[in-house]
Amino acid sequence: MLERLAPIGRDPETGGYLRDAWSAADLELREWFTGEATARGLDLREDRNGNLWAWWGSPSRERPGVVTGSHLDSVRQGGAFDGPLGVVSAFAALDLLKERAVTPSVPLGVACFTDEEGARFGVPCMGSRLLTGALSPDRALGLTDDDGDTLAEVLRRAGRRPHEAGRDDETLATVATFVELHVEQGRGLVTEDRPVGVAGAIWPHGRWRLDFRGRADHAGTTRLADRDDPMLPFARMTLAARQAAQRLGVVATVGRTRVSPGSANAIPGLVTAWLDARGADAAAVRELVAELSGEASEVREESWTPEVVFAEALRDRLARVAGGDTPAPILPTGAGHDAGILAAAGVPSAMLFVRNPTGVSHSPEEHAERADCEAGVVALADVLEDLCR
Amino acid sequence: MLERLAPIGRDPETGGYLRDAWSAADLELREWFTGEATARGLDLREDRNGNLWAWWGSPSRERPGVVTGSHLDSVRQGGAFDGPLGVVSAFAALDLLKERAVTPSVPLGVACFTDEEGARFGVPCMGSRLLTGALSPDRALGLTDDDGDTLAEVLRRAGRRPHEAGRDDETLATVATFVELHVEQGRGLVTEDRPVGVAGAIWPHGRWRLDFRGRADHAGTTRLADRDDPMLPFARMTLAARQAAQRLGVVATVGRTRVSPGSANAIPGLVTAWLDARGADAAAVRELVAELSGEASEVREESWTPEVVFAEALRDRLARVAGGDTPAPILPTGAGHDAGILAAAGVPSAMLFVRNPTGVSHSPEEHAERADCEAGVVALADVLEDLCR
Repeated sequence: MLERLAPIGRDPETGGYLRDAWSAADLELREWFTGEATARGLDLREDRNGNLWAWWGSPSRERPGVVTGSHLDSVRQGGAFDGPLGVVSAFAALDLLKERAVTPSVPLGVACFTDEEGARFGVPCMGSRLLTGALSPDRALGLTDDDGDTLAEVLRRAGRRPHEAGRDDETLATVATFVELHVEQGRGLVTEDRPVGVAGAIWPHGRWRLDFRGRADHAGTTRLADRDDPMLPFARMTLAARQAAQRLGVVATVGRTRVSPGSANAIPGLVTAWLDARGADAAAVRELVAELSGEASEVREESWTPEVVFAEALRDRLARVAGGDTPAPILPTGAGHDAGILAAAGVPSAMLFVRNPTGVSHSPEEHAERADCEAGVVALADVLEDLCR
Repeated sequence: MLERLAPIGRDPETGGYLRDAWSAADLELREWFTGEATARGLDLREDRNGNLWAWWGSPSRERPGVVTGSHLDSVRQGGAFDGPLGVVSAFAALDLLKERAVTPSVPLGVACFTDEEGARFGVPCMGSRLLTGALSPDRALGLTDDDGDTLAEVLRRAGRRPHEAGRDDETLATVATFVELHVEQGRGLVTEDRPVGVAGAIWPHGRWRLDFRGRADHAGTTRLADRDDPMLPFARMTLAARQAAQRLGVVATVGRTRVSPGSANAIPGLVTAWLDARGADAAAVRELVAELSGEASEVREESWTPEVVFAEALRDRLARVAGGDTPAPILPTGAGHDAGILAAAGVPSAMLFVRNPTGVSHSPEEHAERADCEAGVVALADVLEDLCR
């Protein structure tokens, strides 16, 4: 299945993926999901926030189901595994259960969450945040992409009804347990020499937008003394971010910027930078952001996710079932996931990780060996079988 | 006339202009030029490089004419005067000569040069550089815009014949003298308390593209020690540029950047920065670029324009005629212009500047008072009348 997805949204020059939420590539991926669900006779639903659910059986508030899945969108120039591996493995695990002639005692669902990466509107896990009410629809619908289009406009263009977005208890009530399989985004499983692991906790993490304002002017005729060039405080903040992160034992990244007007022969009037910061210690992350805010004209928190510690009983059950003879290793992670959003909202949730030989992710070099992906599917099927017993 | 142009390509949010070469706004501006030429019964020609020429009389190699004009494209989020003031004043000066019942003894032309700002493809004065052979058509046609489209593709889409671009001696031979009127991009005329001045020299200036390569990776899961984040050397270069410029007595600006993949949750794999550097001393400019190149993975010179000293006799004649009782002040400038490209190619050229109360340019705040603009038109008409005698 991953091979069928391979060409969708791939940049032919870099091999990286461009799968912004609600882009043509994303719509094609959603169509693929619909096709896979239909081919298996699953009951396909799209909730009010654009998340897709393919059900084997009919869940209800009284008879909620076990759900697995992930997302299909990507960061810009991302890899083939982050997201799609979890969705493809979900379908493959269902197939395996059918082969094994398992009849689940509760409904079994495959989910595809919308806009997990936040590449387009700046807020990650948009679909699960809206679903659980962690993000208000007013704020979400007003977010703009690089073209200045709001999420509301983009949804309308995609034939959706933006005014219906928001917390959706009815859908949430159909989910008894959520298990997300994901390619590991580090080398923990390489160190452990194991193909599959289980998530222990997700670091607290956040994203901040820093505006640096100056005065746009001519690059050739404005004396240095007369300049108010916002590129300079931006550069100082970028260097200070690394130093503060080192000192505070967290990670900090400036991965996206916008320079206005953005002409080589104009001093910028405005530089906007997005700061991503995470760490085991939430206070240290907050301290870093406070330290860096001094240089900026304005700082806005775009997202903040407190630490998520996955429920111990479920986590240990997964580790036992997925691990075979020896329980699968339990790993912390610095990456946010829809499973973390659901866990924070009180849905029993857990994650399986599949080994990543280089640890590289959010890049075309992101990789997982075929044998490890297959081990992931078997582990996921084992876990689902156990949870549906 | 400037009022007619005011809405074209204006960003309603900022009031700044977005008039990239060959964009819809630029095509509309070119149509306006055609309309003004036709309304005055001028003979309209578009040369092989997309520059527009509206002639009063028929110039030839044997009977070359006096030309005035400027450009209609803008930097991104630029002002209303940089470029258009010169074109509008050219038409207005022609009207004034007709009112004065002047019959020029040589053909009189109004020129609109294409892509003076280089906002789209990174190389300024593209039209005049191609015309004079200062830029090879092979190099120009292969340049790409932010969408990855080459100039060749863009020209073809606009119904032009890119394979015909390049040095055009036939057109050049029709230009005996070129006079460009331009809003001043500094406060020299404010200091002198004069509405109109004359250009003395254009500083040597250049534009360099610096690529900083690193390794794209996940912003949350990659340890600081494992990162190769190109945002850091880019930030160091940006700060070093200001320090080196101060020390060397030149100006240096980073006004445009591109970050790839450009997701808030991905460490960049590539940061590209455009460095604009200028100064009275070409060697100092070169030294600055050499100093800054150390941090970059690759440095490419996108353009280099040696100092242009406008011909003294022509310059002084303009100053006398435009100045009234007291010769107009002669000012140096850090800005490049098509008049500089023509002068470097051996076409007798000169420039008139119109006072800019704030000195700000390449910004929506760029301004010239109406009375000063009118003084500019009168000065330009006087100069043309003198040159056509």
